[in-house]
Amino acid sequence: MIIVMAFEATAEQVQAVVDRLRDVGADAHVSSGQRRTVIGAVGDRGIIQQLPWEAMGGVERAVPVLKEFKFVSREFQAEDSVITVGDVPVGGGHFAMMAGPCAVESREQLLASAEAVKKAGAVILRGDAFKPRTSPYSFQGLGEEALILMREVRDLLGMPFIAEVLDPRDVEVVSEYADLIRVGTRNMANFTLLREIGRQKKPVLLKRGFTATIDEWLNAAEYIYKEGNHDIIMCERGIRTYEPSTRNTLDISAVPVVKHLSHLPVIIDPSHSGGHKYLVGPLAKAAVAIGADGLLIDVHQAPETAKVDGAQALLPDDFMELMDELRKIGTAVGLSI
Amino acid sequence: MIIVMAFEATAEQVQAVVDRLRDVGADAHVSSGQRRTVIGAVGDRGIIQQLPWEAMGGVERAVPVLKEFKFVSREFQAEDSVITVGDVPVGGGHFAMMAGPCAVESREQLLASAEAVKKAGAVILRGDAFKPRTSPYSFQGLGEEALILMREVRDLLGMPFIAEVLDPRDVEVVSEYADLIRVGTRNMANFTLLREIGRQKKPVLLKRGFTATIDEWLNAAEYIYKEGNHDIIMCERGIRTYEPSTRNTLDISAVPVVKHLSHLPVIIDPSHSGGHKYLVGPLAKAAVAIGADGLLIDVHQAPETAKVDGAQALLPDDFMELMDELRKIGTAVGLSI
Amino acid sequence: MIIVMAFEATAEQVQAVVDRLRDVGADAHVSSGQRRTVIGAVGDRGIIQQLPWEAMGGVERAVPVLKEFKFVSREFQAEDSVITVGDVPVGGGHFAMMAGPCAVESREQLLASAEAVKKAGAVILRGDAFKPRTSPYSFQGLGEEALILMREVRDLLGMPFIAEVLDPRDVEVVSEYADLIRVGTRNMANFTLLREIGRQKKPVLLKRGFTATIDEWLNAAEYIYKEGNHDIIMCERGIRTYEPSTRNTLDISAVPVVKHLSHLPVIIDPSHSGGHKYLVGPLAKAAVAIGADGLLIDVHQAPETAKVDGAQALLPDDFMELMDELRKIGTAVGLSI
Amino acid sequence: MIIVMAFEATAEQVQAVVDRLRDVGADAHVSSGQRRTVIGAVGDRGIIQQLPWEAMGGVERAVPVLKEFKFVSREFQAEDSVITVGDVPVGGGHFAMMAGPCAVESREQLLASAEAVKKAGAVILRGDAFKPRTSPYSFQGLGEEALILMREVRDLLGMPFIAEVLDPRDVEVVSEYADLIRVGTRNMANFTLLREIGRQKKPVLLKRGFTATIDEWLNAAEYIYKEGNHDIIMCERGIRTYEPSTRNTLDISAVPVVKHLSHLPVIIDPSHSGGHKYLVGPLAKAAVAIGADGLLIDVHQAPETAKVDGAQALLPDDFMELMDELRKIGTAVGLSI
Repeated sequence: MIIVMAFEATAEQVQAVVDRLRDVGADAHVSSGQRRTVIGAVGDRGIIQQLPWEAMGGVERAVPVLKEFKFVSREFQAEDSVITVGDVPVGGGHFAMMAGPCAVESREQLLASAEAVKKAGAVILRGDAFKPRTSPYSFQGLGEEALILMREVRDLLGMPFIAEVLDPRDVEVVSEYADLIRVGTRNMANFTLLREIGRQKKPVLLKRGFTATIDEWLNAAEYIYKEGNHDIIMCERGIRTYEPSTRNTLDISAVPVVKHLSHLPVIIDPSHSGGHKYLVGPLAKAAVAIGADGLLIDVHQAPETAKVDGAQALLPDDFMELMDELRKIGTAVGLSI
Repeated sequence: MIIVMAFEATAEQVQAVVDRLRDVGADAHVSSGQRRTVIGAVGDRGIIQQLPWEAMGGVERAVPVLKEFKFVSREFQAEDSVITVGDVPVGGGHFAMMAGPCAVESREQLLASAEAVKKAGAVILRGDAFKPRTSPYSFQGLGEEALILMREVRDLLGMPFIAEVLDPRDVEVVSEYADLIRVGTRNMANFTLLREIGRQKKPVLLKRGFTATIDEWLNAAEYIYKEGNHDIIMCERGIRTYEPSTRNTLDISAVPVVKHLSHLPVIIDPSHSGGHKYLVGPLAKAAVAIGADGLLIDVHQAPETAKVDGAQALLPDDFMELMDELRKIGTAVGLSI
Repeated sequence: MIIVMAFEATAEQVQAVVDRLRDVGADAHVSSGQRRTVIGAVGDRGIIQQLPWEAMGGVERAVPVLKEFKFVSREFQAEDSVITVGDVPVGGGHFAMMAGPCAVESREQLLASAEAVKKAGAVILRGDAFKPRTSPYSFQGLGEEALILMREVRDLLGMPFIAEVLDPRDVEVVSEYADLIRVGTRNMANFTLLREIGRQKKPVLLKRGFTATIDEWLNAAEYIYKEGNHDIIMCERGIRTYEPSTRNTLDISAVPVVKHLSHLPVIIDPSHSGGHKYLVGPLAKAAVAIGADGLLIDVHQAPETAKVDGAQALLPDDFMELMDELRKIGTAVGLSI
Repeated sequence: MIIVMAFEATAEQVQAVVDRLRDVGADAHVSSGQRRTVIGAVGDRGIIQQLPWEAMGGVERAVPVLKEFKFVSREFQAEDSVITVGDVPVGGGHFAMMAGPCAVESREQLLASAEAVKKAGAVILRGDAFKPRTSPYSFQGLGEEALILMREVRDLLGMPFIAEVLDPRDVEVVSEYADLIRVGTRNMANFTLLREIGRQKKPVLLKRGFTATIDEWLNAAEYIYKEGNHDIIMCERGIRTYEPSTRNTLDISAVPVVKHLSHLPVIIDPSHSGGHKYLVGPLAKAAVAIGADGLLIDVHQAPETAKVDGAQALLPDDFMELMDELRKIGTAVGLSI
C-alpha cells in the first residue's frame, strides 16, 4: 500500500500514519518530495488494505500495490489450471465447446438441440432450468423438471452438461444434477451464492458481471476458491458500455488480461454479448484466435419460437458450419477443437 | 411494440410477422416507407413483448412502446406513494433523514452514533449486520448480533432502523428485527431475494444497482410489488462510469426521472456515491434542492477506526452542521426537514 | 511518480530504473516488500512523468502522485478566481445566469428570447452562430451573420453575450464580437483550438468533454492558461454513461471536485445534460444548492419550431418562474442570484 | 420516424403532429393502442428527422427508423469499397498491415523502424508529425520536419505512409506529403477538420472517437464522403469504459457491425486500445480472425526511450514473429497477409 499525503498535510499527520502502520506490525518508508510526502507500507496486505487510511487526517489517497486476490493469482500458481467437467478437460491447451439452448423448454426441443450440437462437435451441453429475467412477467424457466431432462439427455448422449443456479437454496439440487454449475452475470457479486458454491464439489463456470472490473471478477473467484472449490472456469460475456448496437460490448481483451493475472481457464460467450445472430460467428472466431479455452453458444432448432433470447440463437446448420471454420483457426493457433 | 423490417425484407416476411401478431390476438398496423416497412403491434403487451421478434426472418429490430413495469408506474397510480417506516412517513412531501454507521461494530460505537444522529434530527437509524464485500478477506458484518443491538438502540431512542439483507434465507430474520429492509446495490437484480422480500410485510428500500438503468431498477421494484409488498422506497447511490475522482457518479437526474415514471418515493445516498467525506455535504444539499424524499448518510464518531467505508463517514459534529444547512434549503423548496 | 516493479523483476531491473531516475536528476526511494519492490521518484515532475517507465524491463506500472496541471490547480492559487465577462463577475461568490436560445435563427427570435431572459434576471446572453452537429444534414448555424445580430442585441440590452467557436480560424472573429467564447463539449480535446483561444484576451467558457475525466478537463484548461489567457470558466454539461433516459448523465459531483482541485469557477448546463424540458428546473435547483457559480440555460419562445435542441428549451414564462425558485435556494445557501 | 405520444396526450395534440407531418409533405400513419397512440411518419427523412418533435405538446419520444448517414451505408452501396493507398489496396479481401513508430523522433529512429516493419511484411508505414497530448507539457511532435523525413523514407523503401492531421490549417500540407491522412480519436467529431479533409483527394483513415457510438462514427465518415472524398478507411481503437486494466476496451464487435451497416473497410489498432505490449499480439490475432481489413501497430526499436506511448510499442523482432502467426490465421480465414 502506498499512502499519498495531501499537499497541506502536517508533520504530525505524517507521523500518525507512520505510527499506525507500526502499530499493526508494518514498516513505513517515508519519501518527501517538494509537494507531496508519500509513505510506502510494507507488511501483511490482509491487515494493511483493510484499514481506512483515507479517513485519517492529511491523507489524500491510498494506492494498493498488490491485488486483493491470492489463490487465483498467477503469482500463487504459475502453471495453467486444467478443470475437468465430467470427463472433459478445460484449460491448459484443452479447448471446450459448450452449446445448446439458452433455456430448456421441452424434452423434444432439448433433445433436438443436444443431438445437433453433439454431432457438430460440442463437448458440453448447455440448457438452463432457472432463468433470471429483468421483468417479472418474463418466462422464468422450468426448474427441477428441466434438470431431470438435462440429466436424461446427458446420459443418452454421454455429454456432461452445464446449468445456472440463482438461489443459494438451489445450489445443492443443481450440483446433484449438473456437471458444471454456472454463476450468471447478475450473480457474480452475490457473495452468499458464491460461498455456497464454494462448499460444493462440482466445477463452476463464473460469468463476469456485466459491469464488473476484471479485478472484481477475480475477487469473486477467490470467494469460491477460498471455500475449498478450486475448479473454476471464468467466462467473459460482454460488459455494459454506452454503445447501443450490441447488447453488451464483448471485452475480448479480458482473455489475455485474465491469463496474465490468473491461472484459471477463461472462455467466451459470444451469444449473450452481441445479442444478434450475425455477430456470433465473428466473435467466436476472434475468441479462438485470441486463445480462449472454450466457447458457450446458444443453439436452437427454431429460434423464432424460443422462450428466451431467440434473436441470438444459431440454427444447428449454422453451428455446424461455424465449427468447421473454428477448427481451421484452432489449427492455426495450435488448438485442437 | 413497433417492429422495423430490414431494408431487404420480403413481402412474405412482412406477412409472417403480421400473421404471428394476429395469432396472438394483436392488431398489426403496417406502414411502408420508401426504404423500410414498419409494423405497429397493438394488443396485450405481456404477450407481445415476450415473443422473439428479432429472431424472425427480415426483422431488423423491435422497439417497445410501453415500459415492462406496470404497478410501480405513474400511469397505474397518479398520486405519490407515502411509505410508513415505524411511524415515520416517507414520500409525498415527507422528507426522511436516515443516518448512522455503515456497519454495526459494537454496542458503544452504535449507541454513540445513534444518539448523535438523533440529536441532529435524523428520524431513521442506519447500521448494517451483513456487509457484501468485494474481497472475501474484508469484514463481513456481525450478523444477528448486530440486529439485536440495533433493536435495543431503536427501543431506547424510539427511532426505527434500516438494515441490509443479502441472503434470501435471512429475509425472515432481518424482517423480524428491522423496520425497513434494504436491498443493496449488488443485489438489485437478485430476483430470488426480491421475490422473498416481496412476500414480507416490512417496507423495503431498494438501492439502484450501480450499473442498472432506471428502467431495470423500476422492474426490480415491480418484482417486489407484484408479490404483494407495495411499500417500496427507491434509493439512488451512484452509478459506475469512467470517471475516477469519485467512487461512483451520483446520477442526480434519477430523482426527477423516477418521479416522472413512478409514484414511489426516491431518496439519495451521498456517502456511497462520492466515496469522500468532502463530497457528502454538497451532494446532500443538491439532493434536497432537487426534491429527493430523503437521505441516507454514514455517520461515525471515529471514522479512522471504522471497519467499513471510513473515508466517507461524517463526524457527528459535521452531520449536525449539515442538518442546519439542509433545513434552510428545505425551507426554500417547501420541505420540512 | 511511484514505480511498481513486477513480482518477477530482477535486481538488475530495479537498478536500471534507479539509474535512469538519477540520470535525469531525480531521487529514487526503494522499498522492498515481500512480493513487490516499489520505487518512489522524487524530482521534477515535468521530466519524470514524460518518461516511458512502463516500457522498461520489470516495471509493472507507474503511478503518478501529482496531477499534470499546475497553473489551474488550487495548490498554485488558493483563492477562488473571479472572471469578469463584460462587466459581470463570475465565481468567488458571484453567481451568473446565462440564458438564451441554443442557436441564433433570426433577429426576431433572438430579440424575443433576449428580452425575456433579461427581464427574468439573466445577466449573460447565449446564442450560437456555429453549431457542431453529429449529422452533416443538420442545421449548422448562421455564422458571422448571427454574431452581428448578437452584438446588436447586446448593445441594445446592455448584456454581454457568449458564443461558441468551432474552428481555430474563427477564433479571431468570434473573439472580436463575443464577450465570452465557448469551447463546446466535442472540442474540449481539440488542442489546436485551445491553444488559439489561449492567445486571445477574451474570457473563455470551457465545456467538459462528454467523455472526459475531470483531470483531462483541467488539463484542457491548463492548455489555455499556459498560453496566457487566465480567464477560464469551467462548465459541466453531462457525461456519457449507459443510462438512456437522459441525453447525458449530469455529473453534479464535478462541482465540488473541481472546486477542490482548482481555483477556477464552475457552472452547470442543465439543458444539454438532461435533454428533456422537465429536467431543466430540477437540475438547475440542484446546481445552485451544490454551489455552482452559474447556469447556462436554453430559452426559446417557440421550442417546437427551434432548429436545434427544441426538446429541452424552456419557454420564457417557465424560465421566469424558475428564476424565482432559484433565488430562494440561492438565499438559503448565501448566493445572490 | 415513429412518434410515440404520451399516455395523457389529447386528440388535439395527436392531430397537431399529424398536421405538421402533412405540412412538410409526409404521410402520417396513426395507430392507437389502449395506452399509447403511435404515429408512423413516412416521407423525406432529411426533413422529418430535423424537426423538434419532442418539443411538441403530448409527444413522449420520437424514434428514428432510418440511420442519418446515407452514402457510407451498405444500403447505398452493397459491395465492399476497396481503397487504394499509394499502390496498396485496402478492403474487399485485401488486408493491409500498417506499422511503424507512434511518433517520428529522428531520422535514425524512423529509418530503423521502417526497415524492420517492411522486412516483416508491413505494407504501409506509420509515424506521426503532430501528436495530440492530454497534457500541454508532453511532446507534441516534430511537425513538418517529420513529414519530410517520412517522405524521404517512403521514397527510399517504396512504402506509402500514413500521418495524423490535427488542425484544419494543416490539412493541405499533410495531404501533400502523406499517402493516407489520419483523423485521430480526439478529432472524430471535429466537423471542421472532417469537412476540410473531405475536400482533399487523399484517402483518409478515420479513427473512432473513444467515446463515439458506431452510428456517430459513420456519421463522421458521412461528413467526409459528402464533401467529395470517398476513400475512407474506418479504424477501431478501443472505447472508454469503466475497466481500468486496459487503456481502452477494444470493441472488436465493431468490425462485424460496421461491415453490416457500411461498405467501408475497417481496420484495428491493437496498440492504443490495450496500452500494454503484452496485449498487442493477442488483439491483433483476434482482429485477423474476425475479418478486419488491416491493422495499425506501433513498432519502436527502443521503446524505453520512446517519446510517446513506449509502453505499448513492439520491438522489431516481436513484430516479425507476430506477422508469422498472423499469416497462419489469415490463411485459415482466407486472407493473404
